[in-house]
Amino acid sequence: MDNVTAPNHAPVLTPPEITLIPNNSLLTETPEEGRQLAVKMARLIIKLTQPDEEKRKQLRKVYDNDAMMLIAASQVVAAEFATIAAANNYWRK
Amino acid sequence: MDNVTAPNHAPVLTPPEITLIPNNSLLTETPEEGRQLAVKMARLIIKLTQPDEEKRKQLRKVYDNDAMMLIAASQVVAAEFATIAAANNYWRK
Amino acid sequence: MDNVTAPNHAPVLTPPEITLIPNNSLLTETPEEGRQLAVKMARLIIKLTQPDEEKRKQLRKVYDNDAMMLIAASQVVAAEFATIAAANNYWRK
Amino acid sequence: MDNVTAPNHAPVLTPPEITLIPNNSLLTETPEEGRQLAVKMARLIIKLTQPDEEKRKQLRKVYDNDAMMLIAASQVVAAEFATIAAANNYWRK
Amino acid sequence: MDNVTAPNHAPVLTPPEITLIPNNSLLTETPEEGRQLAVKMARLIIKLTQPDEEKRKQLRKVYDNDAMMLIAASQVVAAEFATIAAANNYWRK
Amino acid sequence: MDNVTAPNHAPVLTPPEITLIPNNSLLTETPEEGRQLAVKMARLIIKLTQPDEEKRKQLRKVYDNDAMMLIAASQVVAAEFATIAAANNYWRK
Repeated sequence: MDNVTAPNHAPVLTPPEITLIPNNSLLTETPEEGRQLAVKMARLIIKLTQPDEEKRKQLRKVYDNDAMMLIAASQVVAAEFATIAAANNYWRK
Repeated sequence: MDNVTAPNHAPVLTPPEITLIPNNSLLTETPEEGRQLAVKMARLIIKLTQPDEEKRKQLRKVYDNDAMMLIAASQVVAAEFATIAAANNYWRK
Repeated sequence: MDNVTAPNHAPVLTPPEITLIPNNSLLTETPEEGRQLAVKMARLIIKLTQPDEEKRKQLRKVYDNDAMMLIAASQVVAAEFATIAAANNYWRK
Repeated sequence: MDNVTAPNHAPVLTPPEITLIPNNSLLTETPEEGRQLAVKMARLIIKLTQPDEEKRKQLRKVYDNDAMMLIAASQVVAAEFATIAAANNYWRK
Repeated sequence: MDNVTAPNHAPVLTPPEITLIPNNSLLTETPEEGRQLAVKMARLIIKLTQPDEEKRKQLRKVYDNDAMMLIAASQVVAAEFATIAAANNYWRK
Repeated sequence: MDNVTAPNHAPVLTPPEITLIPNNSLLTETPEEGRQLAVKMARLIIKLTQPDEEKRKQLRKVYDNDAMMLIAASQVVAAEFATIAAANNYWRK
């Protein structure tokens, strides 16, 4: 899979160079910022998997109006946040 | 995606300025308050993803009467609570 | 959403004053009691989301006879129990 | 819900007195026994939720032949095992 | 359920004597071996639940060609691996 | 299952010798690299389960355009990342 030239599909198959973790750090000043980071990290994985912005918009329209998908997306944020919160020692003083 | 002006969709795409973690803290006095915080945090992520209150009400009506969605929503609360409980050292004396 | 008077929907929208964690503690004498607490906590979240007892009974009838829902409900109990077990240091002597 | 007499539904609503954790302990001699305990604990929650043995057999027949349900049931075992393994300090010497 | 003789169903109900954790240990030399153990443990639970090899092959054919099931199966491996990695202190030197 | 010769199905049933964890290590220099490792580990499990590249491409096309599958795939990455982040002590200084 590595050294194969696939001229037709190449632009699709090549993962775009996107940053997966803003600022390359899990550490934040506050829980609120940690929560925002969790949301961003979840969205960036979606972006990595489906780099086409137009398609992402269509998919978003679908899941914003589907209760089960909203819940499933919340589960992803909860999982990312658990990691970020541990990284920050839960912002204990 | 950052510096693009999208006059038509802008109000929809701009994430509303909502607080994701009330009081910006995971620390609570009691397990009961920690549990309530878990419920709130789960709901605020739903609100962030679907800011339209009218649509949220409709979606809520759907999942309040769908056993599988009630279970899935409980799973999200359980995940948030696991983080909050760890943050509070499980409210051990 | 906070200071809005919604006379028609108010009784539905106001979350009932229910206790989410019996005895307001995650600590139990034994693993068995910890497991029972996990089951109770999972059920209380369902009760919070769907306070109408009659509807809950109907939903229960559905999921008690649906293999996938039984499995999903077990996953919620497993998650709650993980937190309770950690809180109790796994009831190690 | 507590002090209500519901003669018709009572036998259904009263949770059967079943043991949820065999030997009332998460501690086992070996990883293999810990894994078996995880399987048992997962099954006992199913039994608690659906106490009717005949119905459980029917449901088992369904999910034993449904790939998605087999996978979902495995996820429950994995979650229970994570807790048991932590309780046993991963059976490190 | 324990002391009941059920001559007809007995072969089906008796769980086969299979090993759930190869070598009865979560400890491995390397992350790669730990990952392989995670895959094996996930498969052995499937085997325990559906001991009929012919049926398992049919089910595998189904889920190998179903994107959602592949993803769900990956989630199980991720969960098992989390436990194994913790058991091995993440193979830190 | 071990010593059985199955000439017809052998190439399909034999798991391909693929590396499941690049560099055989969970340790990375930065969170960003840890996140990329999580994505790779998730994809390698898919590859192990469905080694046929052509089929994987077809499946990918399905789930890249299915909102629920994108979310489920994100959940897998979140789980793998939680393990990697813990392994690296969250890249705290």
